[in-house]
Formats: sequence, C-alpha cells, structure tokens
Amino acid sequence: MDTMTSHHLFVLLLSLGVLLAVARVLGELAQRFRQPAVMGELIAGILLGPTVMGALMPELNAYLFPMKGLNAIALDTISNMAIVLFLLVAGMEVDLSTLWKQGRIGYKVGITSIVIPFCIAFTTAFAFPEALGRHLEADPLIFALFLAIAVSISALPIIAKILMDMGLYRSDLGMVAISAAIFNDLVGWMIFAVILTLIDGHAGNGNSILLTISLTLAFVIAVLTLGRWLIHKALPFVQAYTRWPGGELSFALVLGLFGAAFTEWIGIHAIFGAFIVGAAIGDSPHLRERSRVIIEDFISFIFAPVFFASIGLKVNFLTHFDLWLALTVTMIACVCKFAGGAVGARWGGLHRREACAVGFTMISVGTMGIIIGILAFEAGIIRQRLFVALIVMAIFTSMISGPAIRMTLHIEKRLRLRDMLSSKLFLKGIRSVSRRGVIDELTQMVSAAEGLDASSLAAAVWDREEALSTGIGNGVALPHARIKGLRQTQVVVGLSSTGIDFDAPDNRPVHVIFLILTPAEAPDAQLQLAAEIARLFRHKGLTERALRAENVTDFLALLRSGI
Amino acid sequence: MDTMTSHHLFVLLLSLGVLLAVARVLGELAQRFRQPAVMGELIAGILLGPTVMGALMPELNAYLFPMKGLNAIALDTISNMAIVLFLLVAGMEVDLSTLWKQGRIGYKVGITSIVIPFCIAFTTAFAFPEALGRHLEADPLIFALFLAIAVSISALPIIAKILMDMGLYRSDLGMVAISAAIFNDLVGWMIFAVILTLIDGHAGNGNSILLTISLTLAFVIAVLTLGRWLIHKALPFVQAYTRWPGGELSFALVLGLFGAAFTEWIGIHAIFGAFIVGAAIGDSPHLRERSRVIIEDFISFIFAPVFFASIGLKVNFLTHFDLWLALTVTMIACVCKFAGGAVGARWGGLHRREACAVGFTMISVGTMGIIIGILAFEAGIIRQRLFVALIVMAIFTSMISGPAIRMTLHIEKRLRLRDMLSSKLFLKGIRSVSRRGVIDELTQMVSAAEGLDASSLAAAVWDREEALSTGIGNGVALPHARIKGLRQTQVVVGLSSTGIDFDAPDNRPVHVIFLILTPAEAPDAQLQLAAEIARLFRHKGLTERALRAENVTDFLALLRSGI
Repeated sequence: MDTMTSHHLFVLLLSLGVLLAVARVLGELAQRFRQPAVMGELIAGILLGPTVMGALMPELNAYLFPMKGLNAIALDTISNMAIVLFLLVAGMEVDLSTLWKQGRIGYKVGITSIVIPFCIAFTTAFAFPEALGRHLEADPLIFALFLAIAVSISALPIIAKILMDMGLYRSDLGMVAISAAIFNDLVGWMIFAVILTLIDGHAGNGNSILLTISLTLAFVIAVLTLGRWLIHKALPFVQAYTRWPGGELSFALVLGLFGAAFTEWIGIHAIFGAFIVGAAIGDSPHLRERSRVIIEDFISFIFAPVFFASIGLKVNFLTHFDLWLALTVTMIACVCKFAGGAVGARWGGLHRREACAVGFTMISVGTMGIIIGILAFEAGIIRQRLFVALIVMAIFTSMISGPAIRMTLHIEKRLRLRDMLSSKLFLKGIRSVSRRGVIDELTQMVSAAEGLDASSLAAAVWDREEALSTGIGNGVALPHARIKGLRQTQVVVGLSSTGIDFDAPDNRPVHVIFLILTPAEAPDAQLQLAAEIARLFRHKGLTERALRAENVTDFLALLRSGI
Repeated sequence: MDTMTSHHLFVLLLSLGVLLAVARVLGELAQRFRQPAVMGELIAGILLGPTVMGALMPELNAYLFPMKGLNAIALDTISNMAIVLFLLVAGMEVDLSTLWKQGRIGYKVGITSIVIPFCIAFTTAFAFPEALGRHLEADPLIFALFLAIAVSISALPIIAKILMDMGLYRSDLGMVAISAAIFNDLVGWMIFAVILTLIDGHAGNGNSILLTISLTLAFVIAVLTLGRWLIHKALPFVQAYTRWPGGELSFALVLGLFGAAFTEWIGIHAIFGAFIVGAAIGDSPHLRERSRVIIEDFISFIFAPVFFASIGLKVNFLTHFDLWLALTVTMIACVCKFAGGAVGARWGGLHRREACAVGFTMISVGTMGIIIGILAFEAGIIRQRLFVALIVMAIFTSMISGPAIRMTLHIEKRLRLRDMLSSKLFLKGIRSVSRRGVIDELTQMVSAAEGLDASSLAAAVWDREEALSTGIGNGVALPHARIKGLRQTQVVVGLSSTGIDFDAPDNRPVHVIFLILTPAEAPDAQLQLAAEIARLFRHKGLTERALRAENVTDFLALLRSGI
C-alpha cells in the first residue's frame, strides 16, 4: 500500500482524464447557455458517479471511481489539493482595496447580507432540525449554525462574472455588490471557521475551542496586516533574484500550502488558510499580471473542474433527492439572501429598484455554498438528502441571479459577437473593390439566408454609409442599418485581401468588414456589437491575421484567443 | 483508508509546502551558480529524505515523509502526476519541424549519439553486471539494456538551456545539437518503452511482449501522424467554441492523461504516452503562446520541482554512495556520449573543433537519465547504489557540458546585467542636468567603490561620448569606456526624473543611464551588456516604470519580470 502499481496508475490517469474531460465539456455547455460553469462540472460528477453511471454500469463505475482502496485515496488527494488551490485563487480575486474605497454602503450590504440570512436560517434550522435533514448524531446547535452559514455565504467569483456579463461590474451598483460580496466572503468564512472548531474531535490537536478561535482570529489579523505587508515587501526580491516567473509562482503556492496547513492544524479547514493567504497575496500591486494569469487559469480550468466534478462521485443524487427539502432550503436561501442584500442597499441609501438588483446579485450562493455543503457532509453533520438539497440550492440561486437582475433593471441580454457568427454569413474572398459593391455582396448573403429583399437591405446600409463612413481604422469597417421586419440581429463577415477604400480615419484600406443588420426594435444591438468589434481590433496585427482565416471557425478562434 | 482525515491533510499540505519551498530555493541557488535547476531540486530531496533529515531528525522525517500509510500514497500520487505532466511539457518542447528542417546531419548525430553509447554501455553492463550494481533478482539482459539506455539518452530541455545560455541556440551548431537531441529523445524513449515490456509481470495486462511492442509502435506512429493532424485541426474549434484559454488548457491535459493511461495499459510507462502526446500537441502552430506558457510554467516550476525533490526521499544517498561505481558509470557515460555526438558530427561534415563541441553538448544526460534511473529502481532492476550512481552521473554530465563547450569553442562566460547591478552602484536621483555632469556623477560612484581615480575614468567616458552619443532612444543612454587596470566590468545605474539631453536618435530626454566600464582585456563585455539593455528597453513604458524604482531590487525586479 505504499506506492502505486502500474494498474493503480492506469486507473488514476484514466479516471482523471475522464473526469476532467466530461467536467470541462459540460462546463462549456453550461456557459453556452449563460449558466455558471460549475453547474456543468457538478452534473459531470453526477453522470460519472453513483447517480447515473453507478446505476447503469456499476462495474465500470466501481473500476474507475472506487470508493475504497488506493485509487480512492489518490483521487481524494487530488481533489483535496484542488479545493485548497481553488480557494487560494478565490482569495487572490478578493480585492481588499475595493472594500476600503467603496466605504460604508459596501459594509452595510455586506453586514445585512450575512446577518439577516444567518439569523433566519439559524432559527428555522434550530426549530425544525429533523425536517431539514440533520444527521441523527449531529449536534442540533452545530447543525443549525452550519445550515445558516451555508445559506448566508455569497460566491464572489460568480457574482463578479454575472455583473461582468451584464456590463455592470464597473457601475456604482456593481461595486457596491462586489465590495459587499468580499465582505460577506471574508466574514462568512471566518464564522464558518469558528463553527468548525465546535465539532467534536475536529479541533483534534488538543486545542480547546477558545484557543482555536483565538488562533483563527490571530491568523486572519496577522496575515491580512503583517503578512500582507511582508508579502508586498518580499515580492520585488523574489522577482529580482529568482527566475521569472517561476519564483513568484512557487512563492504564492508555498505560502498558500503553509497557510492551509496552519489552519488545518489549528482545527479549522485548510481551505480557510489558503483563502486568507490568497487575499493577502492578491492584494499586492507588486504581483505581476503574468503570474496571476498562470495561477488563476491553471487552477480554475484544471483543478476546479476536477474538484467540483468529484463532488458528484460521493453521493447518489437521485435516491437522496428530496423535492420538498430542496424547495424549502432553496426558498429560505432566496428569500433571506434577497432580503439581506436589498435591506442593506436601502439602508445605504440606494433607490428601491437598485436595492432590489443588489438583493438579486447577493442571492448567488454558488461555489462557496457547495464547498460548505461538502465539508458539512464529510464531517457527518448533515445527511445525504440535505447535502443534495444544498447543492440544488447553490446552483439554483446562481442560475436565477442574472435573469432576476436583468428583469429588475430592464437590461436586455447583451449580444455577443461570437453568438452571431455563422458559416453561412462568412465570406472569405470579397470580389468587389468598391464600398457600394461590398455592401451589395454582403447584404445578398443575408437576403439569401433570411429571405429578405436584397436591394432594400443594401439601400438601407448604403444610406447610412453615405451619411458617414463606417471605417473605424486598423483595416476594419462596420457598415450597418436598422431593418424593419428583421427578426434578429445578423452579422456578416467579409474579408478582402486587396483592401477597399472606406474613407477610414487612418486612411488605410479596409480588409475586414462586419455588416451589422439589427431589428428596428433593438436600438442598442448595433452599438453593443460595434463596441465589441472596436475593442477587439484595437490590437494591432489582428486584421492581418484575420485575413488568413480559412473559415468562420478560424476567424472565431482568432477573435477569442488570438490577442 | 478511503478519505483523508484532518491529520493526513495537514501532513500532506505541510510536506508539500516544505518540499516545494526547499526544492525551489535550492533550484534557484543552483541556477545562480549557472548549474541546472534540477541539481538543486535533487539536493532538496536528499536533504529532506533519509540521507540527511532522516539521519539527524528521524522522527520529523518519518512524520513529514512517511514511507508507509496514507500520506505515502498521497505523496506518491502527486509525484506520479507530476512526472506525467512534466513529460507532457518535455514533449511539447520537442519541435518536430526542426528535425525535418535540419536534415541529415541532425539524424547522423542523433543516431550515433544513441547507438555508440548504447552499444558500449550494453557490452560493459552485460560483461560485468555485479560490479555495476545489478539487483540480484534482475535479469542480466534487462539490466544491461536498462543501463545502456540510461547512459544513451539526452536531456533536451537541459541541452536547449545550455545552448541558450551561450548564445549558440540559433547557430548552425546549436540547431544540429537540438535536432540530434530531439531525435535522441524520441528514439531513446521508444527503446526504453520496448525494454519496459521485457520486465516480467510489467506487461501485466496479459499482453505478450510482441503485442506490447507492436502496440507501442502503432501508438507512436498513430499519434505523430493522424493524432498530430487531428489535434492541429481540432485546436481552432477548441479556441472558437470554448472559453479562452480554459478550453485549450484542458484539451492538452486531457489528451496527455489519456495518452499516459494508454501506454500504461499496454505495459510501458505512462510517461511515454504523455511525452508522445506532448510532441504532437506542441507541434501544432495553432497552439497559442499563452496556453503554452501557462502549461509550461505551472508544470516546470511547480510539478517538476516536487517530482525531482521526491526522488531524494526514496533512497539514502550517503549509505548507498559507492564512489567507484559512480566514477565508473560517469566515466562510461562521458566517454560514450562525447564519442557518440562527436563521431556523428564529423560524419555529418563538421570541423573537428565544432564536432567536439557537439559531442560535449550531447553529453548531458540530466533529467531524462534521472527519470529512467528511478523507474529502473522502482521496477527492481537496479540496486540502490547504482541508482545513486546514475543520479550522480546525470547531474555531473549536465554540469560539465556547458564549461566543456565553452573551453572547446573559446567562448567567454556571457555577462548578465543582473549579476552586475548592486546597491552601491545605483543612484536613484541624478542631480546633474548635463551629459558631462551625469558622467562625472556616475564615475565618482565607481571610483568610490573600486578605489580608482575619478577624473581619469570620467575623461575616458567623456572622450567616447563626445565621439558619438550613446543615447539609444526610449529614454536610455549607455555611456561607456574600456579602462586599463579595471579588474572586472562595472555597471552603474542612474535615474534622472528631469531628463537629460543625450542627443539621442529619437530626440527624447534620457531618464535611465547605464554607465558601463569594462576592463581593457574584455573586448566583448561592453557589447554584450549593451545588447541586453537595448533588448530590454525596446519595450515601451519600461523607462517610465524604471523611474519609479526605489532601489536596486525594485529596478532588477522590473528588468526581470516587468516586461
């Protein structure tokens, strides 16, 4: 049992490969439907775990993902490392300076968004523990505390993603929500750490509960003040005297591992230490962008999917699915979290509609709730059916947050260029050499695909073009028009290797033409797409490389990854 | 034994943190003395393993790095994953197109560099197996084959690094050596894979040896032809339709895991599959630079050090150190590998001196020899004392390769700007506003530190400066002079926030001044440093950020990581 045999290694590699592949594919699918990637990753685990594969192909399931033996330990090791590193990255995303800058309103929302859900959920869980799926041997107080914190915490990464998707990240409302989520995360994890110390035998190092709590507080304060200062001072030395970027990468990871080890030692979970150390590291302006990107990308896209998929391997989600419990928990979470966010925002002086939007933003429990759920499950505090219900709640709250904000603020879904491109509307070689000819050629493609009259489309675009040239420089032009009766926005891409004079501000010939036709009822569509295109083609050299695209896939690959 | 307890997780995090920290620090130290990082990483393991820590603090050693139990399995899992991923990266560095381009001379060196050492070492090992440390139960044929391949293989990453350090990478000689090393790596690993199948019970899947060898060849051919083509075609789709860069990252890793699993299944080691898949992925021009950087940096700087350090944990290097055996193995390796490279280069038509340089380049067994050594040891083919001797040989051949090439080609050690900077020779605020005044101010700093006459130094620099301005644009100037009696090159850095007119080609004022004083006997020193500085400051914005440096550490950090 000391080293892996060839068979063990084979099974480990195969199971990891399958887990990562399915998790990433479903994660991508979830994002395609504008859902958080974690949803797809969890479903991957459910498919590969006892719920589906275990029921249909029990032998294959037991072979790939055994519950006992060396391979179970190996997979457990990797998913443990994955979650610790994921929390390091989550910590690095916490920008403490945002918290200072945003000031009182951020704190107010932060406080109410944790206090209100915590109190309501605690009272409910303490009053009706059995109905809510307490483990029979678990202490009712600890159970109630756990459920309360699982419902109160917010998922900073998901909140940030939702706000970015809606273009609200840099708005006042967005910054209030983000700083509240940072506060919520920090305080929530601290409360969670304290609750962990209350579990019998968990503070197994012989420390008393009081000592553990004191050590936890001392750790947080020391890391976020002295530690943060030392890291900030040490980073230039690491950069100056070690190989770049290896020194900085290992510096961050070693600190994360030690922080995690320390909090595990004092009797709370390792992930808390990784999170706090991450916050201290990520806060230093000396941390270079390249190191941050390497750490965040590798961990978010490799370790995190493995961890979230591995959750589904532990429980049968079908046999332990209790609709009423899931509904109850989800209901409590939605109501509490919405109230917590909205009350704080009103208290901070926001208008009713904006306060509601803040409430809906804070609703998302997401990844953090899932992590708390799995820890509580493994610590034997909650039963399987509550664990399943918590996962459902975490996913559901993340799913409805975006649409609810959109409805509250009357925001249309943002158009994304990548959803508009299709091979039918992509022309590799434009034949014309005049503006008018190009517009005719490209509008004809839409009329063929959509069954609209080509000449009236071309006339509308040409009217706009004559009024003011749509050449935006760097070899790109965006002829466009609003068309009555068009069902949805159409974008045609045309490439011209010879180049066309579009009377562009930089006087250079145009090689990449986006023809944008928008329905008359969607006044913002054209502007959104034009802004995205202008932003992409600000990078020099992109036009030249775009000309080499053989088809729409090459072109899209370039837009998404080539810059 | 199914999931980790809190204590196991604590020990795992602590041991990993310690292992990574010590490995990286010693790896950096090794590089500071111009030695390969892997040397420091191996020493880290020796310090933390039974050799040193186990002897001095046996209890701590057994606590942190136990040989049995759950933590031993966890560490083994991580080091197994690390080596598989490291070989994926090593494969990605193999540029197959270099091999085609370089043509026959590359193949010739490649063939002789593997055939000659293999034959000599095989004969020796087959004739004197006991003297060379064969495991008593190991088959003499397999033993001899193993030793032969361990001595024949070359370490592509280390060879590339050595050539880069000497500025030979893009030279004809460098390209010959690199293409030979690629050939050597590919063929060497294939022979190694075949040898692995010969071990009793290793091809444990019930496959016959012939079947395993056929499957291996079929795998290599399929992956490097069809697989390579499919990957090349698939990458634009991955880039176009998944989140960037997550899709590409997980695509590469999943393929690597599956390739590794497949070769492990057919009865050869997983790392071979990872290596071949890496070669197929790394060869596609569609693979974006950013994905390559993320994968290579994270794996080379985090996983690889953990793996190489973990080697030292397995054996006591002191009690099993056999000087004569180590000398014999090292001698065989040096002679064989030098002869193999040099003979091939002469055969390919190179001159004698250049052929010798190629011979010395191919000498480096490095990381690849170490990996083969550990696999042979774990498969029970070699005894501990031969294992230790192989490690010594691998390190020694990598250490002498660079100096030997330098002596053969009469190349001086390249000066590196980073070794020249010191706080004594760094002036944050230049007071003068004229060229002459700046030169006086900066030469005075050297004279103070070195005890030379300030006015004659300044006169020499000024003579050169008057002949032709040393402003190189982007706000940088490089006044310089050769000084008789100066013991070694001195570089003074001066920053001027007001800016000084140096009559630069872009007419902009100069803010960053490097005063370079070189001994009269070192004609190339000034040019090397000037070229490095010019290359660094080609990046716009660096001058501006350099002005904000508070001290020489900040300045150096910026030069090494800020661009």
